[in-house]
Amino acid sequence: MSTLPDPSAGAAVKAADRAHVFHSWSAQGLIDPPAVAGAEGAYFWDYDGNRYLDFSSQLVNTNIGHQHPKVVAAVQEQAGRLCTIAPGFAVDVRSEAARLVAGRTPGDLDKIFFTNGGAEAVENAVRMARLHTGRPKLLSAYRSYHGATAAAINLTGDPRRWPSDTASAGVVHFWGPYLYRSPFHATSEEEECARALAHLEDTIVFEGPQTIAAIILESVVGTAGILVPPAGYLAGVRELCDRHGIVFILDEVMAGFGRTGRWFAADHWGVTPDLLTFAKGVNSGYVPLGGVAISAEIAATFDRRPYPGGLTYSGHPLACASAVATIEAMAEEGIVEHAAHLGEHVLGPGLRALAERHPSVGEVRGMGVFWALELVKDRTTREPLVPYNAAGEAAAPMNAFAAACKKSGLWPFVNMNRTHVVPPCTLTEAEAREGLAILDEALTVADSHTV
Amino acid sequence: MSTLPDPSAGAAVKAADRAHVFHSWSAQGLIDPPAVAGAEGAYFWDYDGNRYLDFSSQLVNTNIGHQHPKVVAAVQEQAGRLCTIAPGFAVDVRSEAARLVAGRTPGDLDKIFFTNGGAEAVENAVRMARLHTGRPKLLSAYRSYHGATAAAINLTGDPRRWPSDTASAGVVHFWGPYLYRSPFHATSEEEECARALAHLEDTIVFEGPQTIAAIILESVVGTAGILVPPAGYLAGVRELCDRHGIVFILDEVMAGFGRTGRWFAADHWGVTPDLLTFAKGVNSGYVPLGGVAISAEIAATFDRRPYPGGLTYSGHPLACASAVATIEAMAEEGIVEHAAHLGEHVLGPGLRALAERHPSVGEVRGMGVFWALELVKDRTTREPLVPYNAAGEAAAPMNAFAAACKKSGLWPFVNMNRTHVVPPCTLTEAEAREGLAILDEALTVADSHTV
Ligand SMILES: Cc1ncc(COP(=O)(O)O)c(C=O)c1O
Ligand SMILES: Cc1ncc(COP(=O)(O)O)c(C=O)c1O
Repeated sequence: MSTLPDPSAGAAVKAADRAHVFHSWSAQGLIDPPAVAGAEGAYFWDYDGNRYLDFSSQLVNTNIGHQHPKVVAAVQEQAGRLCTIAPGFAVDVRSEAARLVAGRTPGDLDKIFFTNGGAEAVENAVRMARLHTGRPKLLSAYRSYHGATAAAINLTGDPRRWPSDTASAGVVHFWGPYLYRSPFHATSEEEECARALAHLEDTIVFEGPQTIAAIILESVVGTAGILVPPAGYLAGVRELCDRHGIVFILDEVMAGFGRTGRWFAADHWGVTPDLLTFAKGVNSGYVPLGGVAISAEIAATFDRRPYPGGLTYSGHPLACASAVATIEAMAEEGIVEHAAHLGEHVLGPGLRALAERHPSVGEVRGMGVFWALELVKDRTTREPLVPYNAAGEAAAPMNAFAAACKKSGLWPFVNMNRTHVVPPCTLTEAEAREGLAILDEALTVADSHTV
Repeated sequence: MSTLPDPSAGAAVKAADRAHVFHSWSAQGLIDPPAVAGAEGAYFWDYDGNRYLDFSSQLVNTNIGHQHPKVVAAVQEQAGRLCTIAPGFAVDVRSEAARLVAGRTPGDLDKIFFTNGGAEAVENAVRMARLHTGRPKLLSAYRSYHGATAAAINLTGDPRRWPSDTASAGVVHFWGPYLYRSPFHATSEEEECARALAHLEDTIVFEGPQTIAAIILESVVGTAGILVPPAGYLAGVRELCDRHGIVFILDEVMAGFGRTGRWFAADHWGVTPDLLTFAKGVNSGYVPLGGVAISAEIAATFDRRPYPGGLTYSGHPLACASAVATIEAMAEEGIVEHAAHLGEHVLGPGLRALAERHPSVGEVRGMGVFWALELVKDRTTREPLVPYNAAGEAAAPMNAFAAACKKSGLWPFVNMNRTHVVPPCTLTEAEAREGLAILDEALTVADSHTV
């Protein structure tokens, strides 16, 4: 188990992987998972001497980079003190993690229900909303991802839902704002915002407000495209929820904890949901952890009536210790502010400069360390570089682009016709420029597929 | 954050807990979670000088006890090497954990899909079964617990399901064997077995075999009563599944990894399911981890067709490292054999001796370190000491029994009219006898409620 590059050790790791590990979202016989030997900061490396600048933050979770020494030390210390204890007890690190999270969540979202990850956070938020309102239906957006357990996958608005869809799950999908490919034929951010809100209101009215428990949205849509909402959109949804007694859930599993250059993406617009789900950045995934931050009003619903949900590892001590250390390190080291700075002064300008040079770049959008380049065949028609949900040959241009990035030492996050630029919040300016230079080169591959 | 008993530190932990932590399965305003300061082996303690012998293994997960030095060291070492990496890579500890689990699961269950806990394991097993068969329905047992995410809670057969029930989830509940309160009016184990199988077959036939994706069962039913199946039952279910092309899922989240005195409970009867879910004992919950062990045939379904499920922390390195160390320690130290020995020679005889002395004990059942005392008002009528799903005043006799245990330094696992005796597999004989002596005393409280 050496972390020194040793190709034969890498081959053994791969062989055991192929023999025994069943991988997420994959055709098991068609994959060849690269063996990772180690990682630090914004880099990871394999056993063959290849080192990659991680512009994916793994699955957009290592907001403070790999192996942050303060968090590693906290995990090691907690492991020596108390690895596990049941959710029914009070424990110092669990109390402290809850206090630190609650101190950063917007408004009165001051009670924290901890889970192991994002999907379970969404599952519990939805249960709370249904029981709080006594209503059955949920509204969620096309172009969204909320996790892969039954309720979470039914809320999801990308093709990963299709194979697991149970039509009866009580979910109605609507369209969110996305000016570049406006579902509403809008031509300005203001128009997109107004029309998206009108569409949502129409959907609420026709579904029947009294049947709708919750609207769930990613504050900034993540995997489905890094879609930053227009200025008044989230406030408009908040207002619709208030008017109709609907619970407003913001899913900040990917957008939260510094990714957008604020602790939570909702902070950009001063909007407070009733429930906020988080995971990933809360502890950069050093130990599995997620949760729901709960408003005073919804928490009160379960003051005398038992909350009917739980899990063996709710508020796991090791996970909570890593969250405490992560949040403290982010605060002490100004990591959230650094992410904002990177977005405004380095990544934003740098990516826009790439767009000027490369005809394959249709749009650049994002904030903080949360960006997408949308790649197109033709800037005028905006035809995507590869079709929606393309696989195999149809996806070849994006695969060639990704391969070019990897060949030059950059690990990209590619989804459909987009490459997301989602490095750790701790990325240095020099690393950012290194990555931009590699993207610059790799985009020539994408350019060769434009008309 | 000292672990030395210091009442004022404990009060601060409790205050922050009450301000910010939202607890599983609880009316938040009515609970007073005890603050735990530390734990070791079979004991944990609070800040007020109280030390408890843990006959609950927390939530029946600390099979190797608290703070096993080899597992603690492995977590610390892995934290220093690599805390997290995305599921798409191959990693030494993930490969090794999968190999070690696959080496212990029955038959050809040799591919491991890792999750964060039990509920997610069940969610994914069910998805695999539905996609493998192309059939919609699931059969599960009344008297079962499978987790609290949407699909898992709908499968569950205890009252925790009721508030979250979505009638349309495609689940049909049937009755499993339980001779002490036979749903089939049987008078012997053999008769119970035959009648339970006939009932299941009838249910299959009337639901339509070609509509049934899977039957899911706990090998030994855990939270719902420690119900050890009669000798031929699991083999009979296996045969029904084979005959009708139904996937057989065994949920070993609680029963697996030594709890019954074998690596898996299914080993007692030599039965191999198509999918086996695990969590808890795989690493004693030191880091959140669960998973599904998959047969060659079902794995092959996803060889060229992508498996449509996943989670950010599938095969988490820290969790996998703790599983490797746990499994190795259990093997090296003969912990599984020790659990079998405790069951056969200490706990079994000791609990049966208690039953002879205490009229409140209606039945003693179990194996390994997985036992239940079923408490009754009247041994002849078998009327439970408290009604099914009793709360508040109606549950007072069981609450008084639990309080008596705690007062004498034993932490019991109480569910409805039962106390489960589910200590760590590493319990010493002296500790077992200490616990039995406390139960002996506390049972006089239960006796006072008999007729
Ligand atoms: C917005 C959002 N919600 C939920 C999830 C699910 O989280 P997990 O994979 O931890 O279950 C994700 C994961 O990518 C996500 O991006
Ligand atoms: C048999 C069984 N399955 C599934 C679960 C759910 O596991 P988790 O709480 O880790 O989600 C449990 C938890 O007690 C269980 O006992």
